[in-house]
Amino acid sequence: MDNHNRTPVTVLGLGLMGRALASAFLRAGHPTTVWNRTASKAEGLVAEGATAAGSVADAVAASPLVVVCLTDHAAVRDVLDATGGWDGRVLVNLTSGTARDAGDLAAWAERQGAAYLDGAIMAAPDVIGGDATIVYSGPRAVYDAQAATLLSLGSGARHLGEDPTLTALHETAALSLMWNMLNGFLHGVALLKAAGVDASSFAPLAVQGVETVAAWLPGYARQVDDGEYPGLDSSLNTHVAAMRHLVETSEALGVSAELPKLIEDIAGRAVAEGRGGEGYAVLVEQFAKP
Amino acid sequence: MDNHNRTPVTVLGLGLMGRALASAFLRAGHPTTVWNRTASKAEGLVAEGATAAGSVADAVAASPLVVVCLTDHAAVRDVLDATGGWDGRVLVNLTSGTARDAGDLAAWAERQGAAYLDGAIMAAPDVIGGDATIVYSGPRAVYDAQAATLLSLGSGARHLGEDPTLTALHETAALSLMWNMLNGFLHGVALLKAAGVDASSFAPLAVQGVETVAAWLPGYARQVDDGEYPGLDSSLNTHVAAMRHLVETSEALGVSAELPKLIEDIAGRAVAEGRGGEGYAVLVEQFAKP
Ligand SMILES: NC(=O)c1ccc[n+]([C@@H]2O[C@H](COP(=O)([O-])OP(=O)(O)OC[C@H]3O[C@@H](n4cnc5c(N)ncnc54)[C@H](OP(=O)(O)O)[C@@H]3O)[C@@H](O)[C@H]2O)c1
Ligand SMILES: NC(=O)c1ccc[n+]([C@@H]2O[C@H](COP(=O)([O-])OP(=O)(O)OC[C@H]3O[C@@H](n4cnc5c(N)ncnc54)[C@H](OP(=O)(O)O)[C@@H]3O)[C@@H](O)[C@H]2O)c1
Repeated sequence: MDNHNRTPVTVLGLGLMGRALASAFLRAGHPTTVWNRTASKAEGLVAEGATAAGSVADAVAASPLVVVCLTDHAAVRDVLDATGGWDGRVLVNLTSGTARDAGDLAAWAERQGAAYLDGAIMAAPDVIGGDATIVYSGPRAVYDAQAATLLSLGSGARHLGEDPTLTALHETAALSLMWNMLNGFLHGVALLKAAGVDASSFAPLAVQGVETVAAWLPGYARQVDDGEYPGLDSSLNTHVAAMRHLVETSEALGVSAELPKLIEDIAGRAVAEGRGGEGYAVLVEQFAKP
Repeated sequence: MDNHNRTPVTVLGLGLMGRALASAFLRAGHPTTVWNRTASKAEGLVAEGATAAGSVADAVAASPLVVVCLTDHAAVRDVLDATGGWDGRVLVNLTSGTARDAGDLAAWAERQGAAYLDGAIMAAPDVIGGDATIVYSGPRAVYDAQAATLLSLGSGARHLGEDPTLTALHETAALSLMWNMLNGFLHGVALLKAAGVDASSFAPLAVQGVETVAAWLPGYARQVDDGEYPGLDSSLNTHVAAMRHLVETSEALGVSAELPKLIEDIAGRAVAEGRGGEGYAVLVEQFAKP
């Protein structure tokens, strides 16, 4: 790699994700400075060619682009409070947080004279540097200037908009989808295991089911945007009848019925409001209520 | 089509799904007899070439293979109680139900001298006759003898095993995954809409996220079967920190926090049991508890 053409970068935080980020920068040929509270986590990266900074202030001073990826925004503020000399640098935050956290950090960066991009990693560490999707928000011009460097972290980089809080919002929504999906899978697996069927034999069917449902999402999204939820394929009433089976089967097999009951409750409320003949996406109106 | 080589079939129940089933049989060239409580729903199918039976007993008498697809098993028993002459016929149930429902119906069929297959449709009506996945359980020899006919309903037909209750179990698990996934999507969409972002602009990211998570399922299944959940990519602690953001963001935007709170509770219990350093799949142990 011709390192002379690659922007020097700094990565603050070398947890599971931070190490993957630093390693991807190194593989792409960026001169990479790293820092972590627990210094020993830098060792493998130094062996790959990274420079371990002696202090977080030195780490920031080393590069025009600084990526931070820590547990949460409280940790980010702890770490950044010990730094200075930000004028003209770009801070890219890849720590998960709320829109408010992102707004606060953007304001902090502005006070320091730094440009700010907020990012959210929609992928596991093993695909960082590959086809990982990472979404960003903040000034378009800043994103465009850094895009070549940010693409080293994942070919699925995307700019969502100028407002730096957009990323956290999208990440939160995507995480809600992810956790619910994983919970549904694990609850289903718990049911099958209780009946003596192993998880691995269910997995192919689960993946197929997920792909089927994924194909419905753009259509459901249009229904939500239109505020109309025709039950073209299946009515909420039909779903609710089958939800009863999920609750009963969970109880019969001695598996947790907590999540199935909540699912049935939420759908039941929509039916009670006279929406049982509509399609599943009508439930967005239940979720929209405090 | 050369109808003389195709098994005559009967479809009982012409709701959204039953009509799709009958139409697929017709398109594949099966002489198709149909019956529905509300007779008018047969009209379109008769125009496509189906024969409308005058009574459910006549409908059963018309074909060696009878498919039933009604709201629930209570309806199935209502309808089948008015029938006879089952000796030597095959009853294929595609009505959703519990494993117990399937076992009861299998026993009823046995008393009538009929062979029985229980099926579950893992697809929407619009792909019936195309690549729909339909899983079946019951005697392998019966399935094999009917496989060519059942493939007319969907190329993804699959036999799960001899025990007729297996299908309902797998369907229940797959539905748990489906509803949780749709709820996660709709909750995420509700969040974004409350912040002024439309659902359609989120949909591509959601589909991508779903595909990413789908690729993890076989690995998580192996972890569950092995009873070990190493936090290789991400720890439950990291998830729980971000779950807090989901709850806070939901509350801040005036969107329902009920589902996010339950998600956080379930994961929090595993953390309280000292499992926070393990991977997400460790939650199967929470779902396995009554
Ligand atoms: N892992 C994933 O799959 C994934 C995917 C998408 C997004 N993310 C996000 O990426 C971020 C990092 O996740 P991770 O998996 O890398 O977590 P992790 O492995 O637990 O690493 C956490 C990092 O934060 C540091 N840290 C925590 N508190 C600190 C403090 N007060 N001062 C200084 N450093 C502190 C830790 O330093 P020590 O080493 O000294 O403890 C460590 O470097 C999270 O916001 C997560 O939501 C992760
Ligand atoms: N739609 C889907 O996407 C889908 C996907 C997978 C599985 N399924 C399963 O397929 C089954 C049917 O669903 P669907 O969407 O077709 O439902 P649907 O459109 O509501 O149709 C229900 C059918 O059941 C009949 N019925 C109900 N109670 C009856 C009774 N007591 N006696 C006689 N007939 C009765 C109805 O007859 P009338 O016309 O006279 O009311 C109608 O034919 C359900 O078990 C569902 O879980 C559906």
